[in-house]
Amino acid sequence: MTTTPARYSYLGPEGTFTWEALRLVDGAENGEWISVANLGEALDDVVTGRSDYAMIAIENSVEGGVSATQDALAHIPDLRIVGEYQVPVRFALVAPAGVGLEQVELLAAHPVAYAQCRRWLEANLPRHTHIPSSSNVQAARDALEDDGVHAALAPRGITERVNVEVLADDIGDNPSAETRFVLVQKGGPVPKRTGSDKTSIIAELPDDRPGRLLEMLEQFATRGVNMSLLESRPIGDAMGRYRFVIDLDGHIHDERVADALMGLRRFSPKVIFLGSYPRANGHTPSVSPRYTDEAFIDARRWLDAVAEGEPSES
Amino acid sequence: MTTTPARYSYLGPEGTFTWEALRLVDGAENGEWISVANLGEALDDVVTGRSDYAMIAIENSVEGGVSATQDALAHIPDLRIVGEYQVPVRFALVAPAGVGLEQVELLAAHPVAYAQCRRWLEANLPRHTHIPSSSNVQAARDALEDDGVHAALAPRGITERVNVEVLADDIGDNPSAETRFVLVQKGGPVPKRTGSDKTSIIAELPDDRPGRLLEMLEQFATRGVNMSLLESRPIGDAMGRYRFVIDLDGHIHDERVADALMGLRRFSPKVIFLGSYPRANGHTPSVSPRYTDEAFIDARRWLDAVAEGEPSES
Amino acid sequence: MTTTPARYSYLGPEGTFTWEALRLVDGAENGEWISVANLGEALDDVVTGRSDYAMIAIENSVEGGVSATQDALAHIPDLRIVGEYQVPVRFALVAPAGVGLEQVELLAAHPVAYAQCRRWLEANLPRHTHIPSSSNVQAARDALEDDGVHAALAPRGITERVNVEVLADDIGDNPSAETRFVLVQKGGPVPKRTGSDKTSIIAELPDDRPGRLLEMLEQFATRGVNMSLLESRPIGDAMGRYRFVIDLDGHIHDERVADALMGLRRFSPKVIFLGSYPRANGHTPSVSPRYTDEAFIDARRWLDAVAEGEPSES
Amino acid sequence: MTTTPARYSYLGPEGTFTWEALRLVDGAENGEWISVANLGEALDDVVTGRSDYAMIAIENSVEGGVSATQDALAHIPDLRIVGEYQVPVRFALVAPAGVGLEQVELLAAHPVAYAQCRRWLEANLPRHTHIPSSSNVQAARDALEDDGVHAALAPRGITERVNVEVLADDIGDNPSAETRFVLVQKGGPVPKRTGSDKTSIIAELPDDRPGRLLEMLEQFATRGVNMSLLESRPIGDAMGRYRFVIDLDGHIHDERVADALMGLRRFSPKVIFLGSYPRANGHTPSVSPRYTDEAFIDARRWLDAVAEGEPSES
Repeated sequence: MTTTPARYSYLGPEGTFTWEALRLVDGAENGEWISVANLGEALDDVVTGRSDYAMIAIENSVEGGVSATQDALAHIPDLRIVGEYQVPVRFALVAPAGVGLEQVELLAAHPVAYAQCRRWLEANLPRHTHIPSSSNVQAARDALEDDGVHAALAPRGITERVNVEVLADDIGDNPSAETRFVLVQKGGPVPKRTGSDKTSIIAELPDDRPGRLLEMLEQFATRGVNMSLLESRPIGDAMGRYRFVIDLDGHIHDERVADALMGLRRFSPKVIFLGSYPRANGHTPSVSPRYTDEAFIDARRWLDAVAEGEPSES
Repeated sequence: MTTTPARYSYLGPEGTFTWEALRLVDGAENGEWISVANLGEALDDVVTGRSDYAMIAIENSVEGGVSATQDALAHIPDLRIVGEYQVPVRFALVAPAGVGLEQVELLAAHPVAYAQCRRWLEANLPRHTHIPSSSNVQAARDALEDDGVHAALAPRGITERVNVEVLADDIGDNPSAETRFVLVQKGGPVPKRTGSDKTSIIAELPDDRPGRLLEMLEQFATRGVNMSLLESRPIGDAMGRYRFVIDLDGHIHDERVADALMGLRRFSPKVIFLGSYPRANGHTPSVSPRYTDEAFIDARRWLDAVAEGEPSES
Repeated sequence: MTTTPARYSYLGPEGTFTWEALRLVDGAENGEWISVANLGEALDDVVTGRSDYAMIAIENSVEGGVSATQDALAHIPDLRIVGEYQVPVRFALVAPAGVGLEQVELLAAHPVAYAQCRRWLEANLPRHTHIPSSSNVQAARDALEDDGVHAALAPRGITERVNVEVLADDIGDNPSAETRFVLVQKGGPVPKRTGSDKTSIIAELPDDRPGRLLEMLEQFATRGVNMSLLESRPIGDAMGRYRFVIDLDGHIHDERVADALMGLRRFSPKVIFLGSYPRANGHTPSVSPRYTDEAFIDARRWLDAVAEGEPSES
Repeated sequence: MTTTPARYSYLGPEGTFTWEALRLVDGAENGEWISVANLGEALDDVVTGRSDYAMIAIENSVEGGVSATQDALAHIPDLRIVGEYQVPVRFALVAPAGVGLEQVELLAAHPVAYAQCRRWLEANLPRHTHIPSSSNVQAARDALEDDGVHAALAPRGITERVNVEVLADDIGDNPSAETRFVLVQKGGPVPKRTGSDKTSIIAELPDDRPGRLLEMLEQFATRGVNMSLLESRPIGDAMGRYRFVIDLDGHIHDERVADALMGLRRFSPKVIFLGSYPRANGHTPSVSPRYTDEAFIDARRWLDAVAEGEPSES
């Protein structure tokens, strides 16, 4: 019996940071990799079944959450995050052979890349102009193929794929910049609990009354569930109405997380469960004895016992 | 087939407010009523099986919680409250025939009765002295039998039982004073949910850190569970260490109460469940849609569904 | 120039625990000590000006808050606590010379003393009966003067004052029992801050809505103010309506306490400030850097600066 | 005496939404308007003194907060918001005379405009491609001047300025889309309180401990201060570290806001006060009696009085 290899859509071409993220996925090396031009295509592939998975950027340590990704996850039903991957973001200024730094006037760059190298560019190429490219790899190709474009911002490894040379390496404003990616699929049960997991949700508040957000966050705090991300995104129907994109430490099969999610479901008129999945960084959250699975199981057993008439303390 | 009639211990004799409370118990008229001299005897009867039930005073609307009762419930294992009864507290000044108000110098009174009539006594008998009696009925008997005692504070109905006459009626400082009684038994499953129930517990804080009490009360607030009583009682081992006697609106079989009790059990090093039982006043608490049984059941179903891979919204 | 010595009313006679407490007051040895028969007289002396101060019991580590004191402080306007004193509570069984333990059938005891020795009495004098006395010292006198009374519960030191002998020493159920006393005066500015102070208040909730108590306690928690006592007392007009007697760590001149008191005043329809005064036990609370006076002063300065247009960070 | 007219930098050219926003500023019609190419230039003009004010977009009701603006406000010291303006965002598809809808293959659009018309474009021009323009007005010029570009997304009013015609009007996906702009200056005292004001701040959490965000939000909740915006932005030094951009209802001279800001200053290691200014929509927040200026003033007076020895209730 043969099985079809899994198909992965990603923002290509080869060499992009998304491609780097995909290389981190266990078993993906045996799959079919489908290079697409943007987020919409990648998710559409998953929704229509053309792909089994899409690798998409969700947050950059410098630029923040990727709004388009957050909004897509809010709007496209039934997407599930099954993995998280973190990729360091290092940029080089590259150019075709023979071009020197002093000759660079127009450069090609993906907008996010450009934003992350701004300080270096202002200091070293104060009079440059730039044109946007659809990806970091495409920027290098633009530099190679378009005569008016002298150079490009691209990942270091680009020289293996595009015939350009490095004029200046590691020119990002923040040397420790990273991008977080998530692997999404359509529906399906949650991945197994590993002990080092994250749970992602999107939730709306019941109304505009003061203190509502506080009430929502208390759902997590009263169960000892830590929140590693909270982003607000406009619902879009009126100024001042937001939904919240939230990452929690832990897995839906952790008792404390399950309890918090049920509390949230009772509180919020709309909760989207995006998935529980292993964390990129392998960090294991420390859980107070009060919020372990054992504490929850003991409490349930105690409740049943006292309701049946047994003494409060065994 | 014959069944043994249930036995009820109460602070007697006939005519006390406790006796009045016992008259409110459904079916008690067919039981055997055992008059005892104090709280300790009543509870001991239940613990040893001499009685099936004890009727005990737990709170007075003017004097506050009955400390001895609260401490006994904390210390005697396995007592369960199965009913609550409220009795209006009206006092009369009574005396043997022939004694006039102007002759009253020494009066007999149960200490609680005396405390509740103090203002009237100060205004109308400014120069009286008093001796303590073990019950309100005994006070009337003291007035009748002890030559030095001219009058007594007693419930209005005393004239049916003791040969005294009313010198002044309804002389309590607070005309709407009431005493709350509870009927306790040894262990046994909780009474059925009626929709108008109370749940009583005693809990300790995990340690002395600031904000601990707040954390404990949040267990109730985050589940929409109202607290109708909060009393602190010294644990007794050192100044400043307290346990808390708490009454909650609702029944252990209400989902929100069950959830709060489990939260409390996880938080507190020691929780004593004293019972869920019908309220004396038949008041039905209004429950926000967010905390109904349906909301809890829906949340549980939703959690299971999304963990299995179903969409977040059905 | 001569000044009138200060007058102190206390529950006498000499030798009571209240008298012991009064001996702890700096400078009281030069004052005039007025022995009174009960709490009401002591407070009345202060209100009418017959005394400058009254020493009154406010809490026992075993029996809990003294309700009568708490209620008096709530009802008598303008009383101020200016000091706190803690007295170990040790009881002896005493009797006139020639009486042996085996002869003791009837004993005299102040009700609180009786409650605190109950276990010893049940174990060692299982068949005793008792009569209440108005103070521990009076109990010893009763034993001496009343032929029917064989013995008394009294403080150890009683043998210096009353001609009785110790039959059994240190018979309290709890060997570390203590009573907390406070010294009250009529009005007047608060005592100076010592760094080891307490602040006492009585407050009511604005209404019966769930979560109101939580809101009140947050006034303290959000300013890092620790609460060492919380007692509920019935307001008295209806079952289920309470005021709260609260002790806070710190002095009204501590910025964090002042801020919390103002927050409480805005929240509560009725706040009674009972005073800030040095603690009995000299314990100095540790204050997080966030809640020191400096933090408050810095915040105020910062607010003024930024409102004037200065940069947020100096 | 003549005064120099105020200078206003804005994302030009004439006809942009920013230009529309500037038209809403009282008195700006007499000022000098300086069209700049991007946010950085506008703010730089203010910082260097080339302009008195910059009008900058801060939030779109569909796209969310403008990250670049939020980050600039966090990084450039001493900027102050002095006004807020809201502009409806309506897009038309425009083209040079003679171009029909069926001929449009390549269109020019500012990225935000493109994002807001995506659904209409997918439905009506499924096979189009697009190139980014630096502003909505520039997009129309591109359509006019660049032969390869057939059409542009632009504000309705563009036909008054650029020689293009409307092919389709009001094609934004969200008909009620709006953009919020703020007018910023360098330093200076806050504008007068109008009763309908907003206060903007940026704050960091003291550390990563769970519940810290909750604690920060409680600073507002416990003073009855409503939060109309909460956005998290990466601090940038490491994944998972955020600062929060917050809008509050009210003015720094409102007692409750001042108190909350001081609480925040004590809590947070870094608070940037961005200003208090009149709201765009003139909405007056309803303030509970507990949080009015009067309540704060009364509480302060009460505190001083009781500390001086006056009775708690006047």
